[in-house]
Amino acid sequence: MSDFLNAEQLEGLDAYWRASNYLAVGQIYLKDNPLLKLPLSLEHIKPRLLGHWGTTPGLNLIYTHLNRLIKQHDLNMIFIAGPGHGGPAVVAQTYLEGTYTEFCPSVECNSNGLVRLFRQFSWPYGISSHVSAQIPGSIHEGGELGYSLAHAYGAAFDNPELIVACVIGDGEAETGTLAASWHSNKFLNPVRDGAVLPILHLNGYKIANPTVLSRISEDELSALLYGYGYDPYFVEGDDPMQVHQALAQTLDTMVVKIRGIQLDARRSSRSAPPERPLWPMLVLRTPKGWTGPKFVDGHRVEGTWRAHQVPLADFQQPAHLCQLEEWLNSYRPDELFDADGALLPEIAALAPTGHRRMSANPNANGGVLLRALDLPRFTDYAVPFEVPGSQRAEATRVMGTYLRDVMKNNLSASNFRLFGPDETASNRLDAVYEVSAKAWMEPLEPDDLNLAADGRVMEILSEQVCEGWLEGYLLTGRHGLLSCYEAFIHIVDSMVNQHAKWLKTAAEVPWRKPVASLNYLLTSHVWRQDHNGFSHQDPGFIDLVANKKSDVVRIYLPPDANCLLSVTDHCLRSRNYINVIVAGKQPEWQWLDIDAAIRHCQTGIGRWSWACRDDGDPDVVMACAGDVPTLETLAAVTLLREYVPDLRVRVVNVVDLMVLQSSFQHPHGLPDRTFDELFTCDKPVIFAFHGYPALIHRLIYKRTNHENFHVRGFNEEGATTTPFDMAVLNNLDRYQLALDVIERVPRLHDQVQSARSRYWSTMEKHKLYLIENGQDMPEVLNWQWTPVAARN
Amino acid sequence: MSDFLNAEQLEGLDAYWRASNYLAVGQIYLKDNPLLKLPLSLEHIKPRLLGHWGTTPGLNLIYTHLNRLIKQHDLNMIFIAGPGHGGPAVVAQTYLEGTYTEFCPSVECNSNGLVRLFRQFSWPYGISSHVSAQIPGSIHEGGELGYSLAHAYGAAFDNPELIVACVIGDGEAETGTLAASWHSNKFLNPVRDGAVLPILHLNGYKIANPTVLSRISEDELSALLYGYGYDPYFVEGDDPMQVHQALAQTLDTMVVKIRGIQLDARRSSRSAPPERPLWPMLVLRTPKGWTGPKFVDGHRVEGTWRAHQVPLADFQQPAHLCQLEEWLNSYRPDELFDADGALLPEIAALAPTGHRRMSANPNANGGVLLRALDLPRFTDYAVPFEVPGSQRAEATRVMGTYLRDVMKNNLSASNFRLFGPDETASNRLDAVYEVSAKAWMEPLEPDDLNLAADGRVMEILSEQVCEGWLEGYLLTGRHGLLSCYEAFIHIVDSMVNQHAKWLKTAAEVPWRKPVASLNYLLTSHVWRQDHNGFSHQDPGFIDLVANKKSDVVRIYLPPDANCLLSVTDHCLRSRNYINVIVAGKQPEWQWLDIDAAIRHCQTGIGRWSWACRDDGDPDVVMACAGDVPTLETLAAVTLLREYVPDLRVRVVNVVDLMVLQSSFQHPHGLPDRTFDELFTCDKPVIFAFHGYPALIHRLIYKRTNHENFHVRGFNEEGATTTPFDMAVLNNLDRYQLALDVIERVPRLHDQVQSARSRYWSTMEKHKLYLIENGQDMPEVLNWQWTPVAARN
Repeated sequence: MSDFLNAEQLEGLDAYWRASNYLAVGQIYLKDNPLLKLPLSLEHIKPRLLGHWGTTPGLNLIYTHLNRLIKQHDLNMIFIAGPGHGGPAVVAQTYLEGTYTEFCPSVECNSNGLVRLFRQFSWPYGISSHVSAQIPGSIHEGGELGYSLAHAYGAAFDNPELIVACVIGDGEAETGTLAASWHSNKFLNPVRDGAVLPILHLNGYKIANPTVLSRISEDELSALLYGYGYDPYFVEGDDPMQVHQALAQTLDTMVVKIRGIQLDARRSSRSAPPERPLWPMLVLRTPKGWTGPKFVDGHRVEGTWRAHQVPLADFQQPAHLCQLEEWLNSYRPDELFDADGALLPEIAALAPTGHRRMSANPNANGGVLLRALDLPRFTDYAVPFEVPGSQRAEATRVMGTYLRDVMKNNLSASNFRLFGPDETASNRLDAVYEVSAKAWMEPLEPDDLNLAADGRVMEILSEQVCEGWLEGYLLTGRHGLLSCYEAFIHIVDSMVNQHAKWLKTAAEVPWRKPVASLNYLLTSHVWRQDHNGFSHQDPGFIDLVANKKSDVVRIYLPPDANCLLSVTDHCLRSRNYINVIVAGKQPEWQWLDIDAAIRHCQTGIGRWSWACRDDGDPDVVMACAGDVPTLETLAAVTLLREYVPDLRVRVVNVVDLMVLQSSFQHPHGLPDRTFDELFTCDKPVIFAFHGYPALIHRLIYKRTNHENFHVRGFNEEGATTTPFDMAVLNNLDRYQLALDVIERVPRLHDQVQSARSRYWSTMEKHKLYLIENGQDMPEVLNWQWTPVAARN
Repeated sequence: MSDFLNAEQLEGLDAYWRASNYLAVGQIYLKDNPLLKLPLSLEHIKPRLLGHWGTTPGLNLIYTHLNRLIKQHDLNMIFIAGPGHGGPAVVAQTYLEGTYTEFCPSVECNSNGLVRLFRQFSWPYGISSHVSAQIPGSIHEGGELGYSLAHAYGAAFDNPELIVACVIGDGEAETGTLAASWHSNKFLNPVRDGAVLPILHLNGYKIANPTVLSRISEDELSALLYGYGYDPYFVEGDDPMQVHQALAQTLDTMVVKIRGIQLDARRSSRSAPPERPLWPMLVLRTPKGWTGPKFVDGHRVEGTWRAHQVPLADFQQPAHLCQLEEWLNSYRPDELFDADGALLPEIAALAPTGHRRMSANPNANGGVLLRALDLPRFTDYAVPFEVPGSQRAEATRVMGTYLRDVMKNNLSASNFRLFGPDETASNRLDAVYEVSAKAWMEPLEPDDLNLAADGRVMEILSEQVCEGWLEGYLLTGRHGLLSCYEAFIHIVDSMVNQHAKWLKTAAEVPWRKPVASLNYLLTSHVWRQDHNGFSHQDPGFIDLVANKKSDVVRIYLPPDANCLLSVTDHCLRSRNYINVIVAGKQPEWQWLDIDAAIRHCQTGIGRWSWACRDDGDPDVVMACAGDVPTLETLAAVTLLREYVPDLRVRVVNVVDLMVLQSSFQHPHGLPDRTFDELFTCDKPVIFAFHGYPALIHRLIYKRTNHENFHVRGFNEEGATTTPFDMAVLNNLDRYQLALDVIERVPRLHDQVQSARSRYWSTMEKHKLYLIENGQDMPEVLNWQWTPVAARN
């Protein structure tokens, strides 16, 4: 056995570990008698045994050793617990550090506090069994698996002094996101970013199976990790003292190596761009449920899948009660806590203090570090024009010029990055490259463009890794935006769910400070993926988001570039939301000058009086949300002027989808009176919508006039075709909308038949032209808005 | 240069490759003049240039060489094209093999056919730019990236004679699913399964970036692949003849190795279970857009990201037109096609024939191989009881006994597998282990249970890999079911979208035969994840599914075990659907005996007359969908009997969610008259729903009585708490439902105040009890249904 630690250090570490394990077992099992002052009896045991013992001793071992390392090297470190349900360990650690009590004073550092600590765990109105927003020091929920390493890298970006210790469970390591996240090291710059210290914890089992990585040969495993670009260090064993020595020494070596890498890179960074170093990582192989019961009812438990959750249960069997008491006593609590239940001062002294405690590190409560972005005046980027519909622009390209200057203004603060899966340029945000390249640590070749070690645009072809990076970046107090093809953002549905849950929970935790919102730009959207075909056509992400708590989500559908600017500015200033912006990248007609756009976006909805001739008493309301539906609606308005010159049409455009809900359902919801004023109480409403029509119906079902809403949107009809044909396939096109109006306005009853014939002959012409020419009819391609005043 | 191929072979291969590249470029650019009989002019060029050249020559190269290999070794092989937008290559290959013409006779093997072939590509009402269901030989859509390797393994399972060649793009390789899929080899048994031949194609670039795997050192790359458990062979170069030689020789070596592995394993399988072999794989490094324009407008194109899509555009520049003509002529079409445009017979003879052609392999049109499952009588597994609500059962455990015998009856056919991310036992389907273990090729340890090389239960901790395996398995003509925690099925949202799109498209392709449905069991659902907390609580997957085409999706919410049996049997018999079954695993009261269950599930909805006292004229309808909502509804009914003895309550239970939609929206939709009979035209309906309430509102918004529907469901209020408290938090509990009824039945107006007081005092009692005892009140825990007849 190495003698890296002297006897006192060794004993101290082990005592601290035992204390944390004791507290973890206590949380899982006990509701009273926390220090075993009385013989353990049934009444001390919780009625429902919840929690996961299996991963706990390993997490405690690592945390305890990291504490030593922090003190030894004065490290700025946070802890990410990837393994599922690691709550008992991390809560125990935050309690031992005193942080838990600082944040929740009722959980005192004495036996009363211990009772509270134990009872609250996995108890109604208590805390959950995995690390969550409720737990100090956490930026990562250990509920759904797979996101720890991406979160860790997100936290490390632009945090040069930080080391993010990231424990990866060997079950978690089988997930897609985790498997892809290893390559994040190709985007981490040792000069300006912090370090990630991955700790792959091989305890061998998932719920019911061995794990893949624990059963492949060490030869393959070590090749795999080297192939990922790491220098793996292995520590393994089941003898605590031997493992303590090996682990302490190895961690020490790794920290020295990390520091060395950083020093070298930072020293030489003035002469040459840094190269990707071979970062160290740890593989720790210890038994699942280590120090727990070795056998229960004749079955081996420690070191097997049986240790995954609650290794001892059914306390009607007296033997089990004895076994639990023995187990708890095996940690020698009387050597750890004083008679009042306070941790002995010499053990407590082993933890770091103040902000060096991982549970009190401000990076893990990012809101306290958050600095508002220095935002340029978005109005400076406006598309100028005199008359609505007289000018075309690519909305996201305009947004790109604004983002370029957001990037520029905040370069020195190093707190803004743009994320996207290989699509920043395709999404036409490439103006940002004038200010910052894409991060890239691999060798460059002559034709490479916009790649640099200090780039702040983050591109890897994994929506999941991008999302994980951004979440980690935001939760540590920075800002960002993810742009993505609309259809493929579904790849992160589950991650968005979890982030929404995190935000909801964090908002209920008084000491958590607000963080910057998670901002999405969804472009290359369903209506303009005609060339890429059906697989690229899906507007359903907003349905997912609309299911989340109304105090967390916002959905914006700016109809043109100036509205997109206004919305983007708003989203970058907002806190604690998930903001989804859907906007196209193709050249499209522009509708609102910047002043009108600001007013429109502030209200979130508006009557477009310049497009209307309703004089307060419309025959029909034509509503639209989304850029293409807006275009088709306005084109339908011009058709209707021709077909039914005296028709009174009102045009209403919706930017902020949540205004449609009742005000008691969503804070942005319009009051019923305003809604009724806009949409009338009894007139037909033809609503052209960007997404699935059902979303509009569910948002408005409480509204007075909802019976008269007729919604057109995406009906899951896609193909490789033309832009206009996409609208035709889904009955969202101008001809259909005009027909919808005629069919639904009672006084036009006798025009319906001829309108239908006209519609069908137009459709025939459209289809023939399309098949013959491979593009849309001239009257569609060259359509332009005619202002109301100018007609006749 | 090696002389593995003689001059004639070499020339033949190269000619075939040139022919396929010529046809690919033709598809991207030309709408006429397919053989360049006339000087190329603008009128021959398509108006919109769509398609992706970059990946094309590599795919063609591989396909051409695999053809040689198939003929040489008489292989049964299919081809999966992972790289995005590989359509031009694969379509060209299927045309050269004659298969395209066999399936679409109008695309003849002459110059008329060539015009059709070229025009239809990325043309309205033509075919898409990526490999899709429209393309013979395909089981994998190259639209969204990441699923090729999982699909390949799914196809190989239980297909001992098949080799699945799977080209993985280096962009695709960055995605989560792909990164996790490499480890699929830990589940592939060389005795009973086929082989997967992964071909990692490093062409160096994604849309706009270099790829990670193309820029790491060969040392790291080769370690990575070895770490994944493969024996990588490297072929690289940019000289066609040299690459032909190296590739042909290497593929030959690999096939010999695959055959050797299989022979060894199969020979010795009688004496010992097989061990996981080190499967060979290929790394092919060739330039992106190889053989295309080297420079365009002074920029290097071949071998850079500029070759990704259309390397030449803007044909207003005459130089570009010349360059395209030169490019096309560089393939020497006159040496490939005769004057009529038919491929020269000596070149055509290089392709395999009949079913050996990868485009005509029946495994890639799985429906033609599909054999119906031999299903046991599900009624034999019924939970017997006399009276509704007199017996508890764990629904999924009962289903497990049925699935065990499904597994058993089809063992010899080897066409059924059960998939799940480490949760089969947790989801209580473990009876299947009596018949088949979990597949596992790694070393075993003494405490391992239910693991074996020939296991047919597929568990890896990645929902994405499970989903990909199952899709591949189904599309090659087999059957399966995926069980998953309800919340985490969102991880595969995007994969499900793509599979739904595949099914919709495939149904429109006349030669595609129906395949078995994609079946999900979602259990460990939102209402019974109280112990696992908020992160595990999400019922939103059914919202995603409900957005898909109605001819593709089915959603079932069986209220008890017998209904679950009936639904499962139905789903396993169905074809071409996505079936989602949501059912709990906890012990719950049972409501319908098996005969009643069959009738109920056939209709999909029913009045539960045994629970009602409405006599055809109810005061209120209490509707429910889902097991927990059903329980709470029936408990509310018993409360109401006490509170308002003369109230006429009708109970309606919904199993098949799609019956709620109008019959013109979904084939299962109830006719309006039936709907009105069940739900009345004007009475209040209190609907207790498993998922988000909005889903019910959107399904019923066309129904007469929809204004009177008051829906309770999941409101995104979750916590670590008790089962009943989950209902309380979301206002779905029995007390709330009873109050809802009293509030909404007009004649009970003067009871509302006292009902509210009663409700609030009950809630207070509930909460106090909960916090004190950590479990639900005895009246909830011990609640039992009292039959109507027995009351008073």
